[in-house]
Amino acid sequence: MPAANTFAGAPLDRVSFRRADPAWLARRRADPSSRAIVSTADGVLVARDGATPVYVGLGDLPPDAEVVLLGVDGDGAGADGAAVFAADPGPEPAAALRADAQLRGLRDVAAMAAVADAGLLAHATGLLNWHRRHRFCANCGAPTDSGEAGYVRVCPRCGAHHHPRTDPVVITLVHDGDRVLLGRQPTWPPGRFSCLAGFVEPGESLEEAVVREVGEESGVTVSSVRYVSSQPWPFPASLMLGFEATYAAGDPHPHDRELEDVRWFAREELAGAVAGEGELQIPPPLAIARRLMDGWLARAGRPAA
Amino acid sequence: MPAANTFAGAPLDRVSFRRADPAWLARRRADPSSRAIVSTADGVLVARDGATPVYVGLGDLPPDAEVVLLGVDGDGAGADGAAVFAADPGPEPAAALRADAQLRGLRDVAAMAAVADAGLLAHATGLLNWHRRHRFCANCGAPTDSGEAGYVRVCPRCGAHHHPRTDPVVITLVHDGDRVLLGRQPTWPPGRFSCLAGFVEPGESLEEAVVREVGEESGVTVSSVRYVSSQPWPFPASLMLGFEATYAAGDPHPHDRELEDVRWFAREELAGAVAGEGELQIPPPLAIARRLMDGWLARAGRPAA
Repeated sequence: MPAANTFAGAPLDRVSFRRADPAWLARRRADPSSRAIVSTADGVLVARDGATPVYVGLGDLPPDAEVVLLGVDGDGAGADGAAVFAADPGPEPAAALRADAQLRGLRDVAAMAAVADAGLLAHATGLLNWHRRHRFCANCGAPTDSGEAGYVRVCPRCGAHHHPRTDPVVITLVHDGDRVLLGRQPTWPPGRFSCLAGFVEPGESLEEAVVREVGEESGVTVSSVRYVSSQPWPFPASLMLGFEATYAAGDPHPHDRELEDVRWFAREELAGAVAGEGELQIPPPLAIARRLMDGWLARAGRPAA
Repeated sequence: MPAANTFAGAPLDRVSFRRADPAWLARRRADPSSRAIVSTADGVLVARDGATPVYVGLGDLPPDAEVVLLGVDGDGAGADGAAVFAADPGPEPAAALRADAQLRGLRDVAAMAAVADAGLLAHATGLLNWHRRHRFCANCGAPTDSGEAGYVRVCPRCGAHHHPRTDPVVITLVHDGDRVLLGRQPTWPPGRFSCLAGFVEPGESLEEAVVREVGEESGVTVSSVRYVSSQPWPFPASLMLGFEATYAAGDPHPHDRELEDVRWFAREELAGAVAGEGELQIPPPLAIARRLMDGWLARAGRPAA
């Protein structure tokens, strides 16, 4: 098995059936073994090493902090394990919570963090990003209240229940023998190319979304669409769904306004980019796009069975 | 290749790059070749056969109807194909739009409809369901305006852009040799069992969601989680992600409050249910759960390679 994608790998038991148990939640919030990681609009709270989440006591948070339950330590203790929360302290500077801590962007942290820590921070950030942008009822406009330990927002006026949103995105490595199709967006660093990606829309399967996005961005048609792996991507709330697809027809060219260039790269060029040689720049191992490239290179490098 | 899941198979070119082209949209809305299917909170507008969508002219819609672009006929005409819209006429009785038409629930229609028609109706219903429940800005509470042919709602007060939401759900057939694990919810018809399913949460991969949901609903642990296929499911806005997983450990029992029973069924019982024999009731072919069952039965019935 290949290593899990970055941001997958949160180690806690989510104990979702406890979320609607106010007595259990109150006990956990008061328990001295409970602790919280901190995620704000400006980054996550980590130690001086820039990679390790710093935990704060729930009593150290401002009274109006947004607090959500991540889960309990999954060491076999079940719902009796120590509870881990996540908090956004709001306007108060989060770094003031701990003298030895700093706020740092999640992408930078995740590039250095342990698998389990990156998973915890992704869970916290995805959920708190949603709360920050969803304080009002989309159905009637009234302010909503957080409920079920942060997994629902309830409208006191119209009664609507709103759940955290997770936006599925397909991302595809199109290959054709010894070459792969990569595109670049105008805002990326010079030389950077990556796999083709886009949000899944209402009324389409993942496989249809792959065919549509590749066609829209490159003019190319594909066949043999194959799911590879998935990755939570809390920027702000995506779920990356990684695919490979086999080239079928068409000359690649920027087809909609999203890409400024899209073209074939030979296997040697891609292998060079992984080794840090040549002009082609590719995403870091943190990104599922890179994992798709690594997987294809590893397979293509094998002698035929 | 197996047949596509119901609701996948909309035949139009979505021409997403035209959505932000007001001149093109205005021409299409005025063009007599343009037409709209109708989807409301009470169902979709179909002919007397109960299965074929009825098209209405855009000029026949009330002025305040919610109108979204589905795409253009994908017969090689590109963006010059006839445009197809979808509309919710609002409070006016939709059936009054056409004397020979009826409003009917999408599940009932889809059970009889052609693949392409079910796909169109799923696209229309998913998108219009979202508009109906998202007329206000979740960020600040102000009323929002539909834009980009129905693929964004823009807040005139805070400037937030909101896109259609699609909620990923994992649904899993757990198998162990010649038996499969199925559960039932208390509200289902007597005898009905199905695969285990649940919403993907922030901060988890699809594979982690499968392991968590199966564990939460049955107490069983699984290994070898394998993606099979996907299905848009516009009730109101889900995307079903079908998996198989191999049983690893644990005695199945209702573990959270979602299921009232969860247990093993032998291959013969499942095959009997497909044939309409025995006590076990399973979902109709419309549902991806059934497709997972059919796929497992077909494979299990083959002699070992």
